[in-house]
Amino acid sequence: MSHIALPAQLPGIRGPMAFRPETARPLNELVDILLRGPHTLSPGERELIATYVSSQNECRYCQTIHGAIAAHHLNGDEALVVQVKSDFQHAAISDKLKALLVIAGKTAQGGKHVTSEDVERARRQGATDLEIHDTVLIAAVFCLCNRYVDGLATWAPDDPDFYRQRAALVAAHGYGASTLAMPGNV
Amino acid sequence: MSHIALPAQLPGIRGPMAFRPETARPLNELVDILLRGPHTLSPGERELIATYVSSQNECRYCQTIHGAIAAHHLNGDEALVVQVKSDFQHAAISDKLKALLVIAGKTAQGGKHVTSEDVERARRQGATDLEIHDTVLIAAVFCLCNRYVDGLATWAPDDPDFYRQRAALVAAHGYGASTLAMPGNV
Repeated sequence: MSHIALPAQLPGIRGPMAFRPETARPLNELVDILLRGPHTLSPGERELIATYVSSQNECRYCQTIHGAIAAHHLNGDEALVVQVKSDFQHAAISDKLKALLVIAGKTAQGGKHVTSEDVERARRQGATDLEIHDTVLIAAVFCLCNRYVDGLATWAPDDPDFYRQRAALVAAHGYGASTLAMPGNV
Repeated sequence: MSHIALPAQLPGIRGPMAFRPETARPLNELVDILLRGPHTLSPGERELIATYVSSQNECRYCQTIHGAIAAHHLNGDEALVVQVKSDFQHAAISDKLKALLVIAGKTAQGGKHVTSEDVERARRQGATDLEIHDTVLIAAVFCLCNRYVDGLATWAPDDPDFYRQRAALVAAHGYGASTLAMPGNV
């Protein structure tokens, strides 16, 4: 049971977001710009960064919903998402994304863990300053979301189909729509 | 030196915020609502929560600027801020705020560290659901900010007067103004 009274039908971050729409609006806007805005990293790559960080932080809701959204953007390749979470160095992703995932994982441990060498390695694989900046900020934002979701003890559905269906809605409508009720969906 | 090229004169979070104004805007809006919006916790109390979390995360820039803003709101009581950072259980703050700081500190460690007992203790001291929610979210937001500031290796001024002057400006104009140049201030 969640630590405070939240709308019972809304899982994960959507409960506290419905409880406090004033803070949900700018937070969704921030996530929308970072994960869905115009970018040299694809939405699938950015969702993989969000998924990996949420997995490192052991947040079940966030890693499952963002993993499903990543898979949605990556031609439904759920096996790739599983591989990135468990051992991204051997996943079928670019060397640039691998170098950015190292930075993301260290940011999640604490900002000071990121070294000049980590950043240089990403740069050698072609990463731009904007890509490095956004990788750090995506990782930092998911350290927020993971703590928000678990610090209030929200619930997460068990059914993988729930996340697949929700992922299709988020991919189509964006994060700003996540506090809105959607037909056929909690 | 920062990991990416940032405006050299801007310390802490203000460098990356000037580099990426699109994400700075909703992030500042979120912080403004949480720390300065209408609330049953005073701005000083909310800044103490932000300061304590930033101190636990060992982020020098964030704990110093938010400590200065907290002191600004608390009649200039810098000794109280130092006491809250080092041992809040013996600080001259309310038992409710002490219980909320326990929740904030555990959120910073990871959301799952917050227990029902922690929340019940805060409730027995009079904390409302909104105060508990906002404590978790403030702590989570500063886990973001601390990682953003340190993950990009931004610099922090040494002079305490810098933070005192900046604190007065932020207290007067809000966080939305933090990306704007201000007269006499970097």
